[in-house]
Amino acid sequence: MKTFQTAIVGATGFTGIELTRILSQHPRVELAALTSESKAGQDYASLFPQFRGLLNQTLISYEDLNPSTLDIVFLALPHRVSMSWVKAHLDWDIPIIDLSGDFRLDDAESYKEWYDKTHVLPDRVGEAAYGLPELHEEAIAKADLIANPGCFPTASILPLAPLMEAGWVDPNMCIIDAKTGVTGAGAKSKPVNHFSSVHDNFKAYGVKTHRHSIEIQQQLNRVGKTEFSIQFTPHLLPIDRGILSTCYTRPTQSVTDEKLYDLYRDFYQNQPFIRLVDQPPSLKQVRSSNFCDIYLTFDERTGHVISMGAIDNLVKGAAGQAVHNMNLRLGLSPTDGLQIVPLQP
Amino acid sequence: MKTFQTAIVGATGFTGIELTRILSQHPRVELAALTSESKAGQDYASLFPQFRGLLNQTLISYEDLNPSTLDIVFLALPHRVSMSWVKAHLDWDIPIIDLSGDFRLDDAESYKEWYDKTHVLPDRVGEAAYGLPELHEEAIAKADLIANPGCFPTASILPLAPLMEAGWVDPNMCIIDAKTGVTGAGAKSKPVNHFSSVHDNFKAYGVKTHRHSIEIQQQLNRVGKTEFSIQFTPHLLPIDRGILSTCYTRPTQSVTDEKLYDLYRDFYQNQPFIRLVDQPPSLKQVRSSNFCDIYLTFDERTGHVISMGAIDNLVKGAAGQAVHNMNLRLGLSPTDGLQIVPLQP
Amino acid sequence: MKTFQTAIVGATGFTGIELTRILSQHPRVELAALTSESKAGQDYASLFPQFRGLLNQTLISYEDLNPSTLDIVFLALPHRVSMSWVKAHLDWDIPIIDLSGDFRLDDAESYKEWYDKTHVLPDRVGEAAYGLPELHEEAIAKADLIANPGCFPTASILPLAPLMEAGWVDPNMCIIDAKTGVTGAGAKSKPVNHFSSVHDNFKAYGVKTHRHSIEIQQQLNRVGKTEFSIQFTPHLLPIDRGILSTCYTRPTQSVTDEKLYDLYRDFYQNQPFIRLVDQPPSLKQVRSSNFCDIYLTFDERTGHVISMGAIDNLVKGAAGQAVHNMNLRLGLSPTDGLQIVPLQP
Amino acid sequence: MKTFQTAIVGATGFTGIELTRILSQHPRVELAALTSESKAGQDYASLFPQFRGLLNQTLISYEDLNPSTLDIVFLALPHRVSMSWVKAHLDWDIPIIDLSGDFRLDDAESYKEWYDKTHVLPDRVGEAAYGLPELHEEAIAKADLIANPGCFPTASILPLAPLMEAGWVDPNMCIIDAKTGVTGAGAKSKPVNHFSSVHDNFKAYGVKTHRHSIEIQQQLNRVGKTEFSIQFTPHLLPIDRGILSTCYTRPTQSVTDEKLYDLYRDFYQNQPFIRLVDQPPSLKQVRSSNFCDIYLTFDERTGHVISMGAIDNLVKGAAGQAVHNMNLRLGLSPTDGLQIVPLQP
Repeated sequence: MKTFQTAIVGATGFTGIELTRILSQHPRVELAALTSESKAGQDYASLFPQFRGLLNQTLISYEDLNPSTLDIVFLALPHRVSMSWVKAHLDWDIPIIDLSGDFRLDDAESYKEWYDKTHVLPDRVGEAAYGLPELHEEAIAKADLIANPGCFPTASILPLAPLMEAGWVDPNMCIIDAKTGVTGAGAKSKPVNHFSSVHDNFKAYGVKTHRHSIEIQQQLNRVGKTEFSIQFTPHLLPIDRGILSTCYTRPTQSVTDEKLYDLYRDFYQNQPFIRLVDQPPSLKQVRSSNFCDIYLTFDERTGHVISMGAIDNLVKGAAGQAVHNMNLRLGLSPTDGLQIVPLQP
Repeated sequence: MKTFQTAIVGATGFTGIELTRILSQHPRVELAALTSESKAGQDYASLFPQFRGLLNQTLISYEDLNPSTLDIVFLALPHRVSMSWVKAHLDWDIPIIDLSGDFRLDDAESYKEWYDKTHVLPDRVGEAAYGLPELHEEAIAKADLIANPGCFPTASILPLAPLMEAGWVDPNMCIIDAKTGVTGAGAKSKPVNHFSSVHDNFKAYGVKTHRHSIEIQQQLNRVGKTEFSIQFTPHLLPIDRGILSTCYTRPTQSVTDEKLYDLYRDFYQNQPFIRLVDQPPSLKQVRSSNFCDIYLTFDERTGHVISMGAIDNLVKGAAGQAVHNMNLRLGLSPTDGLQIVPLQP
Repeated sequence: MKTFQTAIVGATGFTGIELTRILSQHPRVELAALTSESKAGQDYASLFPQFRGLLNQTLISYEDLNPSTLDIVFLALPHRVSMSWVKAHLDWDIPIIDLSGDFRLDDAESYKEWYDKTHVLPDRVGEAAYGLPELHEEAIAKADLIANPGCFPTASILPLAPLMEAGWVDPNMCIIDAKTGVTGAGAKSKPVNHFSSVHDNFKAYGVKTHRHSIEIQQQLNRVGKTEFSIQFTPHLLPIDRGILSTCYTRPTQSVTDEKLYDLYRDFYQNQPFIRLVDQPPSLKQVRSSNFCDIYLTFDERTGHVISMGAIDNLVKGAAGQAVHNMNLRLGLSPTDGLQIVPLQP
Repeated sequence: MKTFQTAIVGATGFTGIELTRILSQHPRVELAALTSESKAGQDYASLFPQFRGLLNQTLISYEDLNPSTLDIVFLALPHRVSMSWVKAHLDWDIPIIDLSGDFRLDDAESYKEWYDKTHVLPDRVGEAAYGLPELHEEAIAKADLIANPGCFPTASILPLAPLMEAGWVDPNMCIIDAKTGVTGAGAKSKPVNHFSSVHDNFKAYGVKTHRHSIEIQQQLNRVGKTEFSIQFTPHLLPIDRGILSTCYTRPTQSVTDEKLYDLYRDFYQNQPFIRLVDQPPSLKQVRSSNFCDIYLTFDERTGHVISMGAIDNLVKGAAGQAVHNMNLRLGLSPTDGLQIVPLQP
């Protein structure tokens, strides 16, 4: 069987490291190149000693990539840097999976409003395939540019989409109270991820203003073919990995737990990474894996549906989902390289 | 100045230990007795070595308490055990501060429904003063039996009560997404508090069924003089202490952040343990103290008010609030023994 | 290629779960049976939801095992229970890998002294192969009973054995200051692993008396062909997984860092799970993997050699090493099923 | 009673914050000034919200300090900055308690060797009182410059000094295996204190080279009136606060646990912050307090004495000890402001 050649542009952030972890064990892929502008020339396993004895690779500059030898490219670059890279390489004839937020929104106006920056490729913004395989499998399979979803949107859209698609809930009331591990804030040291700021602590941040609000809202609008009002509040957990989204909606018709599970089972049939669970999921039961565990219940006393999604933000929320997208784009089995047992404890 | 004699019945659980920590440094109180049925006769500081060199006290059975030498009694007993203790000591003429849930609800029927046990003193259930000083200062000051509030209710009622009392929000929509440290589940070892179940992990529990739902709802009904529908969802944080309640309501009239803060400033004026803060509070900024930090904001985009309350569940959510109640009941200054700087980091 | 049939007796403790995690992904093995006496009849993935969608297996009683269908058996039972199981199944003609401490020591007298229990199979105690593949590969490959090493001995013997074998150090001075994660104390809830006992905390335990002291000493005596005096002090870290052993010895001849690394490179050549590292290793750089990372240095100022070993106690310290032993015993490649990238962060 | 006026120069690092926490509750002291060069003009409680409602103070530049209004000054400045500040203020006639390492060593040569910087006040290096009250109470009480000890030296000298002073141990063998919380590395964000570098992790650092090695050695040399060879190895714990030093020595005469405790009881009689404990101490049992808990045992099997010291590095290892020194210098009771119950859990 053919082995596909792949490169990771920006391989030294948390997402790049996680892509390297997964791709280095993928049965159908060869890691042809890992790039870093600041660390080009350095041995990858010396920088990240978990890879010693497993990976023998020297970081290069992206300028030394040779597109003719590659089958697919992952961009694990910061927001805003990513779109400039894409613009500078429009002549490359290779599919790109972009893990930044630069191509996730519907249009350049939203981007300007929520990212506070003018987009450099305004026409491409709405054209990229939104890389949530459970919703957009066909588009992903033929896309030249795949916008890998944000971590919070992955954990929030999946426990809500079937309800929205079915039209069962009031579009004006959707509250997503989300909690994330620290790796979502990146590998760079800053006050917000100082150990003593986070450890034994907890708080909300980005209240009303987090960029993932609009990404979630636009995607749910598409699924539900109406305008939803999404209240999204992220919180910072003193853990490395994981997102739990607790979602509250108000059904406009009679529902039961059984009807809810039937709806979701139907919607997600044959989706290998969705697990419908009958107890509120814990983050460790998905840690290191590409699963999204979804829990549902209707509270008769109050009239709300509570749905929860649990993911590993670095895997299903970033690198694992990107590999899933790669598998679809290259015609591989969806689960290739992603049959990972969650690490618990 | 007179020194008051006090006893802690059940001094070896987390709440009892915390009461001992606070009362042992209280300027107007002497810890006359600490009781434990299973550990009577043992030296307290040998069991809990943090107290070595600070406290010289032997645990006794509650049967050896002498009411004539005491000014006030704290009950730090499990739910259901507490009401039996109260029943057995109805002839004691000393004010009691009960930290269990046995006397917090409005009536014995609610107790039966949510605690799944018939109350042994049905007539007393609704008569105890609900020991949230910010709402019931006068009743507390003269009560014989003070029902110290639950930890979640403390963290949830305080950021909501002014809105409810003002009648500004839709009574049918109140969502409280709460997150607590592990000490709320008690000092006894069980699977739910095994280190490897909690550490680097996060999950919801008691969804739809947690007993604090009804306690919150009954108290807010009283404050707002109407029937509220309260959706309360607790989650378990991998930390020792602290509760953050993130509350979502829908105003029925025009509000702004400024109007919200004015309302709360007014409502809580002269309350020494309420701090209105202008950033989402972190749990460490209240750790070890009796403060409740409250944050407020209105989201024009979605039409929701988001209000947050942050407390140390063992202090403002239990032992500290009990001491505040004691201060009020004994005519001491409200802040006696409670001027504690939060431990951060 | 043939697939080997294997069973895990005692599959619901941390070691059993970890064996299940590794064996369920092993390319040459089928998990024929998972046993539990208390949970027989229950679905494994319902008990341990990380396995949902990956493993479809019902727990059985060990009495329902059929030896004629099995190629090898793992015992993940408590100390003392294990030897009774072995005694009761002496007629089975299948190699056994025992992960308890029951067959690790040299003789029944030591067992009696350090485990405070008379051994039920005194003749077998010294006959089992000690399953540290880096030292006993040949014996393991043909053993009927393999005593899988303790977690601390694995992390401590490996950074010391080459020094001992070379006869370079004073046998009267060997200090091992070891630090372990909580999973070493097992999955059963007890005060020592209550979250609030461990979290944000640290302490020594088992000072002078820990059973692994004698296991380390007997093994090093064999390697060094002399009598060593081993001072072993374990400490409890507020983490799930990992052991770091910091070892202090006094060389009796002139050494340098270079000579030390040469000695160890030589000793461990072709050993796939030993990584000699040039910086003090962190536990996360081996987490979830079968590696033992070893660091060495000589302090000219004081005249001590400091050597460190870092492992994941559940993998190299238990389940992974057991699978390594299985690979050797069944004639598979040593690294089959064990090429795991450490999970970092 | 007179209230003393005090200033903290450098009040925004972890040590400065902790000094503020303790001094703001000290019955005999007024916090006259808090300085910060980068944050002068800002409100202290807005920067550090734990102080809201408790402290109303604006940061100033140290240039705006008025020595004629002050009774004592604390320097919570970085190493190297501190000595320049002292040099620039030699004309001030106020006692100074310096919490940096600049005046702790015996001589400027050692400073140059271990701090890699030429000292700006070489004559003052050996003249400052070494602020370990248990050893140097008299010198401290009359010193103009007090060098507050390092955190590791405090946790390591205290469990060793009585042995050294008695001359009971071999001076060539003293191993200190120390473990510290993260706050020891300061409040500034850097890779070493990124949450994901520390959390669920553990490693050694500064092996052979840590500056506290020489500080410990010089102090023990003074106490024991001989030349000791000190092997000091620090490790980084995933906790905020606390140091545990596990110390190994070899007695040159017959000892027993009883003799050891007698020796230490004698040595530390009337010392209010030393607690001799009969079980290995945990860090939480001293957290937030000024205690040093000391445990001792002799291992007959190996011939080593194991002694342990447990402290809160920010209190007994820094700010609390500085306040103890202040109390001695100003003639106050040693325990004024320091009767803190450790925060557990």
